[in-house]
Order: sequence, then structure tokens, then C-alpha cells
Amino acid sequence: MELVTGGAGFIGSHLVDALVGRGRGVRGFDNFSSGREDFLSHHEGSGMVEVVRGDLLDPESVKESMDGIETVHHMAANPDIRLGTEVTDTDLRQGTVATYNVLEAMRVNGVSKISFSSSSAVYGEADLMPTPEDYGPIMPISLYGASKIASEALITAWVGTFGAQGYIHRFANIVGPRGTHGVIFDFIHKLKRDPARLEVLGDGFQEKSYMSAQDCVRSMLHVMDCNDDDANLYNLGTGDTCSVSRIAEIVVEESGLDGVSIEYTGGKRGWAGDVPKTYLDVSKLLATGFEPTTMSEQAIRDTARDLIDEIGL
Amino acid sequence: MELVTGGAGFIGSHLVDALVGRGRGVRGFDNFSSGREDFLSHHEGSGMVEVVRGDLLDPESVKESMDGIETVHHMAANPDIRLGTEVTDTDLRQGTVATYNVLEAMRVNGVSKISFSSSSAVYGEADLMPTPEDYGPIMPISLYGASKIASEALITAWVGTFGAQGYIHRFANIVGPRGTHGVIFDFIHKLKRDPARLEVLGDGFQEKSYMSAQDCVRSMLHVMDCNDDDANLYNLGTGDTCSVSRIAEIVVEESGLDGVSIEYTGGKRGWAGDVPKTYLDVSKLLATGFEPTTMSEQAIRDTARDLIDEIGL
Repeated sequence: MELVTGGAGFIGSHLVDALVGRGRGVRGFDNFSSGREDFLSHHEGSGMVEVVRGDLLDPESVKESMDGIETVHHMAANPDIRLGTEVTDTDLRQGTVATYNVLEAMRVNGVSKISFSSSSAVYGEADLMPTPEDYGPIMPISLYGASKIASEALITAWVGTFGAQGYIHRFANIVGPRGTHGVIFDFIHKLKRDPARLEVLGDGFQEKSYMSAQDCVRSMLHVMDCNDDDANLYNLGTGDTCSVSRIAEIVVEESGLDGVSIEYTGGKRGWAGDVPKTYLDVSKLLATGFEPTTMSEQAIRDTARDLIDEIGL
Repeated sequence: MELVTGGAGFIGSHLVDALVGRGRGVRGFDNFSSGREDFLSHHEGSGMVEVVRGDLLDPESVKESMDGIETVHHMAANPDIRLGTEVTDTDLRQGTVATYNVLEAMRVNGVSKISFSSSSAVYGEADLMPTPEDYGPIMPISLYGASKIASEALITAWVGTFGAQGYIHRFANIVGPRGTHGVIFDFIHKLKRDPARLEVLGDGFQEKSYMSAQDCVRSMLHVMDCNDDDANLYNLGTGDTCSVSRIAEIVVEESGLDGVSIEYTGGKRGWAGDVPKTYLDVSKLLATGFEPTTMSEQAIRDTARDLIDEIGL
């Protein structure tokens, strides 16, 4: 049986779908802070998915959730990078400390295999683009990025000290149905409030790698199929980028609204800690034979369509 | 005024000496878990050093200690890498969470400059020796190393998000008088218990970079004098290495004991999470004009002599 922390969340619920699609039994662990029951409701009655309501900051409930588990997919985290600028211990607690609690519960229960959703945010403002996995020095500029590298390091320490096996996935920006945050989600909510005007944080030149949630979870499992090293590290993305101004255009196109004025707040960042450009080198992923089904721009367009359906305009 | 966390500890007390030598007033903050009052007692009555007994895990006392501070030298940490194999939250709490508390107290009090004692342990088992600052991927294998990169990342996040200025020093193994842990310290205590036999953990081929505590604090302050970037990262070491078997020989020589049998427990590591070989590339440090006064072997010999004096045989 496989444990998915954050299993009712955006990417977590897609991972549950993919695991069930492979015939695996899944225990989803979630505190439902941003996860939602209806993201997993299509599995009700299948006998394949067990949902546990619990918090990773409660070590006892994490330990209990390890019963019968072979592999832990640790996807739970604060999903909103910007929160770190307001409440400064969010990422420390929900990122770093939560990961420690997961690893310690694994150690105590003799569970050794962990797959972890890290982020391109660990690279901060990298000098080298596209940025490969062995890029250094690692200097994240957001508290979210700091919690991701802290969690990665806890995992490699568990590998080196307690014989765990770790798969670390550094995600591009992941987009898709059930998204609960992020730029496309924000744009749609803004258009819902004011269909005449779309405010974009920053100058619009911010440019990042995007990947669909389906490709993301497919690539995670593919990497785990292909590698059996103690510590495995992969950038997961599509190998291209899309600018924020282009995303704004796509969302407006998909909204069907006419005469929307796109306005920029200016400055190279959307917020303090925002990395203006991320561009992941995914040649290591592609060398395993994985092929993304959509590139950044198409993933964004599909997501805009899906989220407009979900959110309504 | 400058704040030195862990100011009564091994390296911290040497840093207090160096700062006072430059005419700076110092507030030493320590919980005296491994720090000792007599490491600072020679400053009594000088009016230069104020000692605060407090714990970095108590956010309020950390905030209070920031009053009137311009620069924070954050040196406090669990000094014993091996502890992580027994109590797994030691480094998380005394490393990562303590650093967060320091940074948050700085933010709240408008203190922006931090200097931090990181470690070569962040590199784990690096493929590249000597290992430069931009080596990647960063995969520490000890919980100590994980807490150091987590703390580094919190600092760069504070730089990127809140406008702090950070100096990150990745230390070689630092040795010298007032040492409270480490291989030389251990060997002397073992010889004190049994003058006929010295047990060495591992096969003796472990090989690391060593630096004297005096050179260490001198190089830290030198790097801060030479650089005014927002985020500054330096390896601090001597540019050579010494093996554990050679250290055993040196300690036995300095002990004056005859006929000591040096015995190896075998295996390439001293303990789980021990990195068998570390060799820091210090060309970035040397390019600033800094010159170490002693290389690894001499630093070890001097330390053996000093600690035999302190500990007694």
C-alpha cells in the first residue's frame, strides 16, 4: 500500500488517480487545509483509496498512518509561495518540520522508500538557464524554496544515516484541474470579480517552466520505475517556458471575455521572493524516455479551460 | 554591538576574543549546554562582553537579545554530528529551528546582517574534490549537514524576501583550545581512560580538512571585511587534509605515552552519516588575500597539545 501525504490536494489527488490506475491501493493523508474531499470522491466505493484526516504536525497520527505502507509519496506542503512573506513560519512548519515528522515516522515503522515533491524554487535566481540538477550554489530566495531544500536534505540524510531510499522531484510550476492556487487560478478569480480588467503582479516578463499535473505524476512514477539508486534527483518539467504576460493573454482568450484590459503593477517580481525567471533543464528526465504530452503553453491553455469550468466566470 | 550566539562555546568564544581584539562590544548569547563560562571569564571586568544566558528555542529571549545589535554572528548549534543518529530531532531543533528564530528576531527588530557558521557537511559525499562553493547537487548524508543547508537556505530566503545581508561560512573541521567535541578531544579522553590502547572508529583512512579556531574566526571576519554583496558564501579551510590515522599518531606523540596500541574498528565510516573524505576548495578564500597561519597537520598538533593541557592525561 502507498501513502500519499496531501493526497486530497491538487497534485496529490492526481497522484492518487495515477496510482489507482496502476492497481495500487492508496492511503491518502490530508489535513484538508487546501485539499478537498471532492478531489477524491470519484474513488468512493472502489475499495482502492482510504482517506485519513490528520495533520503532519501531529507526530503520532503520522506514525499511525504508516501501518502497512511500502512507499510514501510526500506531497503535502503549504501550496502558496507568497504566504512566506506574511507568516514566516508557515513553510518551516508545513514544509521542513512536516517532512521531518514523515521521515521519523517512516524510520520508527521500518518504511524506507520516500518520493518527495520538491520545487524549482530551490535554485533561487540561478545564473545558469536551463538549470540542471547539479547546479550550485543552492540559494533559494523564498521561504518556500528554503523549506524544499531543507526537506530534500533531510531525505538525503535519512538515506545516508538510516538506509532510506529517496526520490526527489524538483517540479516546474504544475498546472491542471483541481488547482487551488497559482497564477492561472488567481487570474480567473480576478476576472470573476472584474471582467473588464486583469491586474498582473510584476511587469509580465516573469517566465517559468510549466507542466500539466497529469504529466507531473506520470513523470514521478516513471522516474521511480527507472531508478533504484539510494538517492535519486530529477527536475520534472517540459523543457520550455512561458511568460506571465502570455499566460494573461491565454486566460483572457479562454475566458471568452471581450475588451479585458491587462494591467501590470510593474517591477521584475510579482512579490518579494518571486523568482523572475525559472527554466528547468529536463534532459536527465528526457533521457529516461519520458515524453511530456503537452508543453508549457498548451498545459496552461488546458488548465485555463479546466479551471474556468471549475470556478465559473 | 555584535551578537554572538553560542558565544560561550568553542568557536563562538574564539570569535568573541577576535571581535574584542578589534575593539567591538559583544553580547554573547548561550544556553551553556556545551558552552562554558570560563571560556569567556578572561573578559570579565573589561566592559566589552555582556553574557546573556538564554535558549534560541525560546523566541522571546532571542528577540530581547537583539536590542542595539548591528550584526549577528550565529554560531550556536549542536556541536556533535554523531548525536543525529540517536536523537533525530536534535539538529532540526538546535540547527534549523534555532536559525529561524534568530532570523525572525532580526526581522522583527530591524537587524539585517548575519554571519553563519555552516559546514563542509553540506556537501555529503561529493564527487568533486577539492569541493568548491558552487558544487551540486547538495546532498548531505548527516542530519547535522541537513540542518546546516536548511539554515543557509533560510538565510538566503531572508536576503531575497526581507532584504537581509548574509555571510555563510562553510567550515572545515575546526580545531583548537576549548574544543568540546571532535576526534582529537575523543582520542585524548580515550587515552585518559586507557593509556595502553587507542580505539579509532573506522579504518583510519577517513581524511578531512582541518583549520585552527584562530584562523577560522580570522577568516570569517576577513571575508566580511572584503565582501558587501547581499549573499556571500565561502568555504573556510586550509586547502589540505589530514587522515584520521595520522591524527591518532599525532595525538599519541603529543601525549608522551609509550607503547600505545592504535586499533581500528574497521569500515570506511566512523559512524552512520560520517563522510569518509572531505576536502574543501578554498581558492575563493585565498583569492581575498587571506592566509592561514597553520595547515591541517600543524593545527591538529597544536590542538592536541592544548587539549592535553586542558583535559589532563
